[in-house]
Amino acid sequence: MDNKKPALYTCLSPALLHLYDISDSVVVIIDILRATSTITTALKNGAKAIIPVDSVPDCIRIGKQIAAITAGERDGQIAEGLQYGNSPFEYPEEFITGKTLVLTTTNGTRLLHMALDKGAKEIIIGAFSNLDTVCNYLIKKNKPVLLACAAWKDRVNIEDTLFAGAVVQKIKEQFSINCDASQIASALYAEAESDLFEFMKNKEASHYKRLSSFGLDKDIKFCLTSNTANVLPVYADGKLIKKAGIS
Amino acid sequence: MDNKKPALYTCLSPALLHLYDISDSVVVIIDILRATSTITTALKNGAKAIIPVDSVPDCIRIGKQIAAITAGERDGQIAEGLQYGNSPFEYPEEFITGKTLVLTTTNGTRLLHMALDKGAKEIIIGAFSNLDTVCNYLIKKNKPVLLACAAWKDRVNIEDTLFAGAVVQKIKEQFSINCDASQIASALYAEAESDLFEFMKNKEASHYKRLSSFGLDKDIKFCLTSNTANVLPVYADGKLIKKAGIS
Repeated sequence: MDNKKPALYTCLSPALLHLYDISDSVVVIIDILRATSTITTALKNGAKAIIPVDSVPDCIRIGKQIAAITAGERDGQIAEGLQYGNSPFEYPEEFITGKTLVLTTTNGTRLLHMALDKGAKEIIIGAFSNLDTVCNYLIKKNKPVLLACAAWKDRVNIEDTLFAGAVVQKIKEQFSINCDASQIASALYAEAESDLFEFMKNKEASHYKRLSSFGLDKDIKFCLTSNTANVLPVYADGKLIKKAGIS
Repeated sequence: MDNKKPALYTCLSPALLHLYDISDSVVVIIDILRATSTITTALKNGAKAIIPVDSVPDCIRIGKQIAAITAGERDGQIAEGLQYGNSPFEYPEEFITGKTLVLTTTNGTRLLHMALDKGAKEIIIGAFSNLDTVCNYLIKKNKPVLLACAAWKDRVNIEDTLFAGAVVQKIKEQFSINCDASQIASALYAEAESDLFEFMKNKEASHYKRLSSFGLDKDIKFCLTSNTANVLPVYADGKLIKKAGIS
């Protein structure tokens, strides 16, 4: 173990976030199905900014205040009172360019706010959609990293763990990893990487079953596809924007 | 999914225990390195009972009150003031037969008391040492199951996850599993099962490194070996005893 390398940890559930000191880390928020995949896609397609909020009433209020699009889901479906849902396919270039989205989701936006409350100074958004961009940025940045999985109502889930594993596999040589959760994620990804969708299906991943029952296989497949939107969403001044100079 | 089958869940850290309703479940406490391996071995070797306690002072006090052996560890080493440690090799038949052990450990005994506080009515002890006995019992019992990993100071660890995965792999046909953590554990075990010790070593499991640095490779290997002590420790009236009629 090279002590000069920065440390990398994986937090498999928001309920474990308190175990990690993130004050000096880059925190990668991971909510593959579907918040972080959608955020990444919308920014790649030209969204001006995405404002993540905790609750549906906040989403509606802020949406009105700044005349932005309101979007989000609860339990995998469009939340009542919001205009759009949490599918990356709802935000093509011709619709989203130049617009601001106010977004609330079951797990991802909540975790982002937990990380802020815990003193995180740098928060970025990770999804398979921007896998290589995230990895390249973390290596270049050369700072401690926390891969923070949004999970499902605090229960560890397969897809966020798989993404953490993909990142670990790609950047492990550049980091010091003394973290069993990272090793578990990496081993899981190694087993699944040849076909992530089939892996999710075969393992009866709870989120696969939930979204598939709504006819959203297309969304699942898209969210498990690497490098469809190589932008880096960063949190700054209350919103997620595309980091300049990175693609 | 057959709804008549009882549900099986895996809880990867004590900090996630609150997510599970365990009032009607058999709770399997898992602390492979080394509490549950040692409990199982000591009972197999003839210990009369093992009293799990939270703290070192309680351990010393109760040990005096009932003239029992005090044992336990903090951070992988014998805790100050106690007579013995947490190695299965400290409790051979010629020493332990007929004796009562008061035991406190960093993670395992704490989790057991958390499960009690949460209303668990049936608590059993699982380790590779008694893998088949645990699996056979769970199948025969035909009730909901929670595989509860003690982890390391609430951080998910590889060895407890591996044991949960071994159980899932052996009993999954008899249970309804809608739990990503169980699937992750099972996939991890599938990758590791040909040589658990090598897997732990290659993955630089944090507990492997900790115990190995104390020269305890022998303990690690023993604790990863299946079916060396096929007894079923159950919690009753404040102590762990060998369940009668099971071997």
